[in-house]
Amino acid sequence: MKILEMRSAPNPRRVRIFLAEKGIGVPFEQLDLMKGALKTPEFVELNWFQRVPVLVLDDGMAIAETMAICRYFEELQPDPALFGKGALGRATVEMWNRRMELGLFFCVAQAFRHLHPVMAHLEVPQVAAWGEANKPKALEVLRYLDRELASRQYISGDTFSVADITGLVAIDFMKPARIQRPPELANLERWYHEVSARPSAKA
Amino acid sequence: MKILEMRSAPNPRRVRIFLAEKGIGVPFEQLDLMKGALKTPEFVELNWFQRVPVLVLDDGMAIAETMAICRYFEELQPDPALFGKGALGRATVEMWNRRMELGLFFCVAQAFRHLHPVMAHLEVPQVAAWGEANKPKALEVLRYLDRELASRQYISGDTFSVADITGLVAIDFMKPARIQRPPELANLERWYHEVSARPSAKA
Repeated sequence: MKILEMRSAPNPRRVRIFLAEKGIGVPFEQLDLMKGALKTPEFVELNWFQRVPVLVLDDGMAIAETMAICRYFEELQPDPALFGKGALGRATVEMWNRRMELGLFFCVAQAFRHLHPVMAHLEVPQVAAWGEANKPKALEVLRYLDRELASRQYISGDTFSVADITGLVAIDFMKPARIQRPPELANLERWYHEVSARPSAKA
Repeated sequence: MKILEMRSAPNPRRVRIFLAEKGIGVPFEQLDLMKGALKTPEFVELNWFQRVPVLVLDDGMAIAETMAICRYFEELQPDPALFGKGALGRATVEMWNRRMELGLFFCVAQAFRHLHPVMAHLEVPQVAAWGEANKPKALEVLRYLDRELASRQYISGDTFSVADITGLVAIDFMKPARIQRPPELANLERWYHEVSARPSAKA
């Protein structure tokens, strides 16, 4: 078993943090996205969508999509539960992880992909107006999240979950996307420094 | 328990099909998105992101996000399993559901939201160039899906799953998004007519 990734990309980082929280070790193999590694026939055969990470199992089967890889390991080793426990717990984590993905991570990614020159060969066509439109959306979600974090420790409740991983990686992704984190959001800052201080954040 | 929705919107339809496949009955309450129903203080309190569907539990707790609602019912009533069985089965369904969501449904939604005049007050700003950029992306994914469906009955394997629901709803959403389904994709057509003929498709 191995995971194909590029260390500096945000989605592989979500998987690395997830595995570190579980205490699971999997070998990683680095691909250079900037040198066309996702467009080789071998990689397209593994993942037609040309994205990392991809988990390659011992029989050669490939599991793509960050959340599919994380769920695979959640099933293999349920503790600590990072997708929640019980029907309501799991629904709540899923809701918040989706909000962090679709409401925040996605906006940051669109700003990065459509505005950064380094992405010109991977995001075709780059639409600058769309990249710009996502910056205020991301900031609005951060302000909302700040209000929510006034009353609880983690994004989806009192327990660390995959929603915190997605939120943390999205916020760190704001730097290359050139979106500044508003320093006055005190609850968000408290949460950000707490989750950033976990050993898994360095994975 | 009730679900707030708008009948003609695609995400609520995903939940209705999901519940119909499970044989679960939940009362639905209609909101009129075109008359500002998502922007009322009451609705924003339920879901700050101003999207339907929202599941409201008997104690007033609100679960938003289509996939969170579906997972809640999958946990309450596991059969028939629509998110797959076992670690590998669940990871595979999640991978294909994500591909249908992020690769297809999302592209169709962006074309609709950024190009259709009726969405001007909900998608601010509309970026026409971004809407147009998504149309060929959606068609490319359909061509890929057609090749995949040559060797299996359903999108994620030999069993109907939530990935088929997402794929079906995305393809039907192409009509209001004004993207024509290429009629020459024979495997896709076979699958599309098969899943459209299930009683759940009319839910």
